[in-house]
Amino acid sequence: MSTIRAGIIGGSGYTGAELLRLLAAHPQVRVAWVTSRGEAGRAVSELFPSLRGHADLDFIDPAQADSGAVDVVFYATPHATAMHTVAETLAAGVRVVDLSADFRLRDQAQWEAAYGCAHAAPELLAEAVYGLPEVNRAAIAGARLVAVPGCYPTTVQLSLAPLLAAGLCDPDSIIADCKSGVSGAGRNAKIGALLCEAGENFAAYGSAGHRHEPEIAQGLSAIAGTAVTPIFIPHLVPMIRGIHASCYVRLTAEADLQALYEQHYRDEPFVDVMPGGSHPETRSVRGSNMCRIAVSRRGGTAIVFGVTDNLVKGAAGQAVQCMNLMLGCAEDAGLGGIALLP
Amino acid sequence: MSTIRAGIIGGSGYTGAELLRLLAAHPQVRVAWVTSRGEAGRAVSELFPSLRGHADLDFIDPAQADSGAVDVVFYATPHATAMHTVAETLAAGVRVVDLSADFRLRDQAQWEAAYGCAHAAPELLAEAVYGLPEVNRAAIAGARLVAVPGCYPTTVQLSLAPLLAAGLCDPDSIIADCKSGVSGAGRNAKIGALLCEAGENFAAYGSAGHRHEPEIAQGLSAIAGTAVTPIFIPHLVPMIRGIHASCYVRLTAEADLQALYEQHYRDEPFVDVMPGGSHPETRSVRGSNMCRIAVSRRGGTAIVFGVTDNLVKGAAGQAVQCMNLMLGCAEDAGLGGIALLP
Amino acid sequence: MSTIRAGIIGGSGYTGAELLRLLAAHPQVRVAWVTSRGEAGRAVSELFPSLRGHADLDFIDPAQADSGAVDVVFYATPHATAMHTVAETLAAGVRVVDLSADFRLRDQAQWEAAYGCAHAAPELLAEAVYGLPEVNRAAIAGARLVAVPGCYPTTVQLSLAPLLAAGLCDPDSIIADCKSGVSGAGRNAKIGALLCEAGENFAAYGSAGHRHEPEIAQGLSAIAGTAVTPIFIPHLVPMIRGIHASCYVRLTAEADLQALYEQHYRDEPFVDVMPGGSHPETRSVRGSNMCRIAVSRRGGTAIVFGVTDNLVKGAAGQAVQCMNLMLGCAEDAGLGGIALLP
Amino acid sequence: MSTIRAGIIGGSGYTGAELLRLLAAHPQVRVAWVTSRGEAGRAVSELFPSLRGHADLDFIDPAQADSGAVDVVFYATPHATAMHTVAETLAAGVRVVDLSADFRLRDQAQWEAAYGCAHAAPELLAEAVYGLPEVNRAAIAGARLVAVPGCYPTTVQLSLAPLLAAGLCDPDSIIADCKSGVSGAGRNAKIGALLCEAGENFAAYGSAGHRHEPEIAQGLSAIAGTAVTPIFIPHLVPMIRGIHASCYVRLTAEADLQALYEQHYRDEPFVDVMPGGSHPETRSVRGSNMCRIAVSRRGGTAIVFGVTDNLVKGAAGQAVQCMNLMLGCAEDAGLGGIALLP
Repeated sequence: MSTIRAGIIGGSGYTGAELLRLLAAHPQVRVAWVTSRGEAGRAVSELFPSLRGHADLDFIDPAQADSGAVDVVFYATPHATAMHTVAETLAAGVRVVDLSADFRLRDQAQWEAAYGCAHAAPELLAEAVYGLPEVNRAAIAGARLVAVPGCYPTTVQLSLAPLLAAGLCDPDSIIADCKSGVSGAGRNAKIGALLCEAGENFAAYGSAGHRHEPEIAQGLSAIAGTAVTPIFIPHLVPMIRGIHASCYVRLTAEADLQALYEQHYRDEPFVDVMPGGSHPETRSVRGSNMCRIAVSRRGGTAIVFGVTDNLVKGAAGQAVQCMNLMLGCAEDAGLGGIALLP
Repeated sequence: MSTIRAGIIGGSGYTGAELLRLLAAHPQVRVAWVTSRGEAGRAVSELFPSLRGHADLDFIDPAQADSGAVDVVFYATPHATAMHTVAETLAAGVRVVDLSADFRLRDQAQWEAAYGCAHAAPELLAEAVYGLPEVNRAAIAGARLVAVPGCYPTTVQLSLAPLLAAGLCDPDSIIADCKSGVSGAGRNAKIGALLCEAGENFAAYGSAGHRHEPEIAQGLSAIAGTAVTPIFIPHLVPMIRGIHASCYVRLTAEADLQALYEQHYRDEPFVDVMPGGSHPETRSVRGSNMCRIAVSRRGGTAIVFGVTDNLVKGAAGQAVQCMNLMLGCAEDAGLGGIALLP
Repeated sequence: MSTIRAGIIGGSGYTGAELLRLLAAHPQVRVAWVTSRGEAGRAVSELFPSLRGHADLDFIDPAQADSGAVDVVFYATPHATAMHTVAETLAAGVRVVDLSADFRLRDQAQWEAAYGCAHAAPELLAEAVYGLPEVNRAAIAGARLVAVPGCYPTTVQLSLAPLLAAGLCDPDSIIADCKSGVSGAGRNAKIGALLCEAGENFAAYGSAGHRHEPEIAQGLSAIAGTAVTPIFIPHLVPMIRGIHASCYVRLTAEADLQALYEQHYRDEPFVDVMPGGSHPETRSVRGSNMCRIAVSRRGGTAIVFGVTDNLVKGAAGQAVQCMNLMLGCAEDAGLGGIALLP
Repeated sequence: MSTIRAGIIGGSGYTGAELLRLLAAHPQVRVAWVTSRGEAGRAVSELFPSLRGHADLDFIDPAQADSGAVDVVFYATPHATAMHTVAETLAAGVRVVDLSADFRLRDQAQWEAAYGCAHAAPELLAEAVYGLPEVNRAAIAGARLVAVPGCYPTTVQLSLAPLLAAGLCDPDSIIADCKSGVSGAGRNAKIGALLCEAGENFAAYGSAGHRHEPEIAQGLSAIAGTAVTPIFIPHLVPMIRGIHASCYVRLTAEADLQALYEQHYRDEPFVDVMPGGSHPETRSVRGSNMCRIAVSRRGGTAIVFGVTDNLVKGAAGQAVQCMNLMLGCAEDAGLGGIALLP
């Protein structure tokens, strides 16, 4: 297979850095260019010394990004950015993997309410494929434009999909008490993400309605085939990477939950159903594309714990997984890295 | 008022250290002796250099502890220790504040099931007063033996008491998704509490039935006046101090929850009902005896966040608060310390 | 004694928060107002929930600060701010305690080189007293304007003062390898201070010449009575509070270093000379105004470890200590807090 | 090339886990067995869930270890363990890579003084090759028994080798102020390594003479060709992985230090000389086998910063690098992992 040439729009954030790390180890991909408005002209390896020897590129201005030189473009931008140029990129015959929120919601009004601005490319919302391979594998393989799910939605959907697909629970009873490392806030100079604010501290945030909640509801509803209205409460954990979802669901029928989960995910390369009674640790997936899940029950309530690395399976790794499907690579190409523990 | 002479059994753990810190600043208390089986003969300030100049004592062997020299004895021991000597201490006319689990459950069989051994002083279970001042103030004031609640139970009970006391919720619907700093595991050489195990990691533990669950059920039931069967799931947070309870409860009647909470706690010196929509941070109570609570609702579900410092309001501070009540001090004597932030 | 009325200019940073915490516990001080350009109109306790119940004030705009209403003004501002208004404040007959760098260096040219701008009040440089009580106690007591030392300079000077005062070492041989918690960077939205940048990481910074180096050189030279040219290398530690100085000095004469240090600091309330062979821990002073020091030797090299809490003895605590001296309070008034460990 | 079969003695610690991670990704190695006295019979992936799917082995008792089934044995044991069985392993015709301290010092008396017991295999001390490839590459390639250097000695030697080899500095002037993450203490249940003891804290330790100091002195002396007597002071950093050495050396001659370092390491795959003025971060090598170094000068003093991941280049990675040399693999086989940042 010939080498795949990739471009990255917005490479100076954490998902950008993670994409660069994963693609540097991908046997079939070469990064042709990477943009950053703020860091244009600076060597990638100066900003991220971890990439010295693995990314001999300078950041370029987005205006210099050449779609003609690449086969696929990753958008690792804040929301409301990709939507302005994706159409043009697609028109150049280039596949697009968007790690931002711009094409995740199918309903334009819902998107505009959640993100507080008009959508600039509503005509693409219907075409965009939601990039959760465990749910949408075939559609992703044929897509021009894939919207990579958010980190919370990935973890919650993978944690609950078997239950919802089997129709075993009350769709109005779902509580997803989720916890994220601070890298979910991105590489932005925000007071709340300072070590002295987020360190040695624990609190919920966004409990009145986080932007990921409509995405979770949309995804769970699609899996369930009926409207699902979860309560999603995110919390900030004083650590860098990792998402932990603790999901509570009222069961409406008897079932062997362990068997259900093992069966549902038996062929999935990146979902690991752990033994009953397990407590998956976020560090067990640190730096890897794996999602680990454990299911148990207490009376009529199913309890599901799911963990991912928010920057890998929750962002850059899942993006590469989608790209592999779109461009005919092995689904796990470049994604074999083992979690770093301790 | 004459000086109160205090003894501490088991002073080399974290609750012991915290008791020493709080009592050193208490205007009416002098610590007469502090025991430690493992550290006997060693200066307190050598083990805890933070106390240099504030605790001019050597640890003594428990066999040397002289009840005759003190007015009150604090037990800061692991479970199944205090129960062997409390009767003797009480017989000497000394008040006992037990920070361990030994006298928290009224039901002997339940205690023995939870702690896996026979109770050595079952005749005291009925006399022991559960040391949650916000619920039991008068009884504590008249008690010889107070059982200070566990850290999780303190936080969950204070978070839910107004709802349960008002009879506004389904007692079988309670989910308490709780998160604790690592100091809750004590100053013990356990692999799981190593920085390299608990750091940069997040996971649940004990989800099949933590020892604090019967205590929570007992306390909530007493408040509700009916049997309450909560699901309590603890998680470990990579930080030193702090407990965060996220409680989810199905409401059975309409109410102004904010007004209910403010009214319920209007006279409490150590419970702070925060404005609606708040997200209490564990660091906002670090080192202080305060419990901060915020309540909100999503549809028919009440969401209550509560935070305490597990070593203060969840242990040593609450013990001092109880002692103050028992011995006629101002309830907040020695407990005026402001949380350390950042 | 009548109550001292204090004003705080720049109260929304970490030193401001720490001043508010310490002054709330000071028996003789009442904070009359606190300014913040960015937070004017907001309740102090909304920004810092740890102060709920302890600071019933709103931030005001600096333009509203009324010198007539106070006896002392603390400047907790970035450098190059206080110098614009201190003269006016002094003219109102108010004492000034400046926690910023503006009046720490006696040499205007050196200050301007270090801070990269013209000094706005050079006429006050000679009057300003360097606020290190262990060196300058009498002068501080009589001062109108005190420049509180930086956190690194405080720790290094206290660590080396006995050796330099005794003339026992080569003044050109000093290496101060220092390590600071991240709160030294202030409550500012800077990428480098994010949890995801500073956490789980260790590195030096500013090794080509940190702004605190001239201040250290000035202070050590004053103590030694001869020019001292230290090499000062700061490093960033993934923790919130604490400074650790590891000082290496070539000895030029024999001496009992332990006795020298104990003698030098025998009457100091806030310097603790630890036993020989000790390794002072930053956490042993967390939240307290104490500096702990241990001295040892390896061949002809003296090794001195010193620790402080950069926000207390390295900033707000030392400011209060100076204020106590200036206004006739007991030197340790309001500074009795015991370090929080763990 | 046929597959290399490897055995690991002592696989339940952090260096064992890291060996398992690295060897799982090594294209030519298969781990035949891994021993653990305490975990025998347990699945490797149960102890280290990060290895689920990458290490389908159970720990076996050391008595069951079969030298006949392997080509190389790694000892990842505490000191004073390997020395009892290495002779037997070698006699079976198997190469030995010892990650412990047992064969690092050439002088038996010095070893016994440092480690406090008699050496059980002194006859092998002369044969053992010190496994620092950048200094001993050819000898390692021909060795039966390689003693992998300690984490501190690796970092300090690589940081200072160019200066010492060029004879540019005073061998009695070396100060190595070193800082290590807590994983250097191993996966052992020690109070001092608890998150609540080592977290949010910084202190020196072992300043009177750490066990790595004779090893550092031996290594530096060999490089310099003359006796070198460094002062080595280790400190504990509240993070999991990483070593940072800050080295201070008095120069005895003029030289372009940047050119010297770049020239010295121009062909080394795992030493990265950073641009002048750099401050290498430990996280830039997290999980990778790289050592990054920056050199500068202040007057007559050279300042060298060096960073490694103590579990990789400071232990398991360097062990694999040595194995590669011993068994004819590409030196970097299995060691291409890019550092995980953030």
